[in-house]
Amino acid sequence: MKITALHLYPVAIADPPLRSSYGLHAPYALRTIVEIETDEGIRGCSETYGGEQPLAQLQAAREKLIGRDVFQLTSLLMEFEAQAQQETSGVEGDRSQTWHVPGENPLDRHSRTFAAIEIACLDAIGKAWNKPLCDLLGGRARSEAPFSAYLFYKHRGGGGLGEDERPDEYGEALTPEAIVRQAHQMIQKYGFREIKLKGGVLDPELEVETIRALRREFGPALPLRIDPNCAWSVETSVKVGQQLAEELSGGGYLEDPCAGLEGMAEVRKRLLADGISTPLASNVAVTSFAHIPQAWKLGAVQIVLSDPHYWGGLRAQLQLDHFCSVLGLGLSMHSNNHLGVSLMAMAHAAAACPHLNFACDTHYPWQTEQDEVVLGGRIPFHNGSVRIPEKGGLGVELDYDQLARLGERYEKLPYRKRDDEAEMRKRVDPNWRRVLPRW
Amino acid sequence: MKITALHLYPVAIADPPLRSSYGLHAPYALRTIVEIETDEGIRGCSETYGGEQPLAQLQAAREKLIGRDVFQLTSLLMEFEAQAQQETSGVEGDRSQTWHVPGENPLDRHSRTFAAIEIACLDAIGKAWNKPLCDLLGGRARSEAPFSAYLFYKHRGGGGLGEDERPDEYGEALTPEAIVRQAHQMIQKYGFREIKLKGGVLDPELEVETIRALRREFGPALPLRIDPNCAWSVETSVKVGQQLAEELSGGGYLEDPCAGLEGMAEVRKRLLADGISTPLASNVAVTSFAHIPQAWKLGAVQIVLSDPHYWGGLRAQLQLDHFCSVLGLGLSMHSNNHLGVSLMAMAHAAAACPHLNFACDTHYPWQTEQDEVVLGGRIPFHNGSVRIPEKGGLGVELDYDQLARLGERYEKLPYRKRDDEAEMRKRVDPNWRRVLPRW
Repeated sequence: MKITALHLYPVAIADPPLRSSYGLHAPYALRTIVEIETDEGIRGCSETYGGEQPLAQLQAAREKLIGRDVFQLTSLLMEFEAQAQQETSGVEGDRSQTWHVPGENPLDRHSRTFAAIEIACLDAIGKAWNKPLCDLLGGRARSEAPFSAYLFYKHRGGGGLGEDERPDEYGEALTPEAIVRQAHQMIQKYGFREIKLKGGVLDPELEVETIRALRREFGPALPLRIDPNCAWSVETSVKVGQQLAEELSGGGYLEDPCAGLEGMAEVRKRLLADGISTPLASNVAVTSFAHIPQAWKLGAVQIVLSDPHYWGGLRAQLQLDHFCSVLGLGLSMHSNNHLGVSLMAMAHAAAACPHLNFACDTHYPWQTEQDEVVLGGRIPFHNGSVRIPEKGGLGVELDYDQLARLGERYEKLPYRKRDDEAEMRKRVDPNWRRVLPRW
Repeated sequence: MKITALHLYPVAIADPPLRSSYGLHAPYALRTIVEIETDEGIRGCSETYGGEQPLAQLQAAREKLIGRDVFQLTSLLMEFEAQAQQETSGVEGDRSQTWHVPGENPLDRHSRTFAAIEIACLDAIGKAWNKPLCDLLGGRARSEAPFSAYLFYKHRGGGGLGEDERPDEYGEALTPEAIVRQAHQMIQKYGFREIKLKGGVLDPELEVETIRALRREFGPALPLRIDPNCAWSVETSVKVGQQLAEELSGGGYLEDPCAGLEGMAEVRKRLLADGISTPLASNVAVTSFAHIPQAWKLGAVQIVLSDPHYWGGLRAQLQLDHFCSVLGLGLSMHSNNHLGVSLMAMAHAAAACPHLNFACDTHYPWQTEQDEVVLGGRIPFHNGSVRIPEKGGLGVELDYDQLARLGERYEKLPYRKRDDEAEMRKRVDPNWRRVLPRW
């Protein structure tokens, strides 16, 4: 089954003004829907990061793809790896995401590009053989993929052009009480059984209070995690770890409290010395396989946050699952803004991974029906989980009308990359800069 | 596609009197051919270790298999792992193969059993979809799998019941000159481009002389490796490493010179201190994923010898390839006595693994046409390599007449496990015991 065409659909999706240590989400998030056509008339699709750079990388890969057998992915990966080695040799800087939002890290662009193509090829194979994608990878460790409620401190507004285009479903949330309301609303709608709070936004004391309020409200049955994206110093991280020792126990974790593996290792060491075994998770200090041995040796990270979009696709996701299990590390899953195609890729990944022991992150509740690109609309959740459908490949088909509509919107946008810092300056504080550590 | 039946064919194959540090090969080696039937009328096969214990393990797995979808392998692996944890908890001893021949190590029996089933299921899927097995795993890093000439010190005799049943193709080889002759004969017939010598049999000085004679004869274009299976002390290993610094360079390696990771680490350290970078390879100290982190930390092993038969199948083989590449370890492949079904499983594994940078070991030249169980007879080699055929699955079909004949032979044999030490006492030296280190 040979690839005869590659279609790339850049789209813009309305996104509420969510806060993180990177800054503020812009009114529209960018994504790229990827579609391959094959000589057997079967199509396969995937979804990846949006904007100029990811799109250009995919365009550049076109000549590697046309005429290629969808089954020959390892040789394609080898080509990408050789190219990456050539292009990044001598490039300064590590591959961490301390200073990059995911999708804008130049050092993992080959992994991201390969991943988008791999998933589309696997989708095509699954559709050709009428087999769910996870069954092409060894089958299911579970038949549904659990996700977590991903809470954000948030300004007023639903995103996009305002209330007409996008009602503000969740309202403003800049206090512990408002976050508890947000959690209730989201859990009621989706049934999530674990909770993640994006931190690094308010004073750490307030974020500690937010986590405590969530624990008081939902009790220990719903594990809690907080992720300040490196906003804290080692000192502050240790202090928060001490303050939240009980609240983050029992299946919760502390995610990327500070920058760098050495800092994380220091936090871990000091918490352990205090008898606090809260695991540290990361998708900032650890973003590629090359980081893992060092992270493991230092004891800096106990839970790796996977993501098929930038770790190199679905087979890489399974390799990561296996790698972590051998080293005694836990595995959870990171998320960026995304639509239903990505959600299904994440669900298949989670279904296939035997050692993924935490509910996956997802931004899906922050997007709405109006911006879905899969036929039939939004993917349903059952008790916080997405079921693997008995359909071929990812189990979704593209809605070309929606792609056209969201593509037109993309064309009109003045920006071509995610820049949360610029957005923060534009809408909240003209002098705002991302400073690490902030506290 | 559900499994409706499991057929197990124990077979005995004539085997010449080959020597190693474990002792002497018996006149017949034991193997098990595994076959599953499915409700779609498709069959899948694999080959694994022979004799009582592997057979009993497979029999015991039958109830897990009947009714199972051939695509649901991860959940099967999880069942095996849970069972292994239960059955081996509290069991003394490590999982190394220092004191076990491969196939008789009780601590990896679940991996072996799973592997045999996994490969048969993948063969069935490949046959159903008319796709070569390696293409189900991501496709080919190479279109043919290179193997090495596997030389043994050897007594007179072709194995089996003697000359009538099995001519002595290679003759006696207990001197450097005879090994050079053996190498010529094997290379002429198969075209191998790398050479492995099974050592640990003669005085190390004679084995050093054998390697030197091979180098003189074949030059540096044919990399050399020697494997005494832990027969040497650290002292002797270092001395041999020094003596063979040049001969084992350029793509060669020193395999399991002494027992245990600590010993290997010491050998490596002392060789490096002498400016000798000969990599150490292992399939004795490192036989499972759990060994790798420690081996890597100690710097004890630079090349891991994979083997889909006991590392857990073909997907595990790819995980091992990936794991080794992340840790900067090389990958080669171990072999036991085997027939064409195993050879094809190894070939598909090698074709699929991007980081397998050495020709694989194979005992295949030590078996002959009369004992082949695949239709059409022996698998051909081209310049030392096995080509991946454009056929579904492994690319071979079973010859049931041959299975019946070799099964009858198995039934008549008085032994049900490989015991090279007993054989050595019986045929060479009634007082022989395996002593480590011997030198």
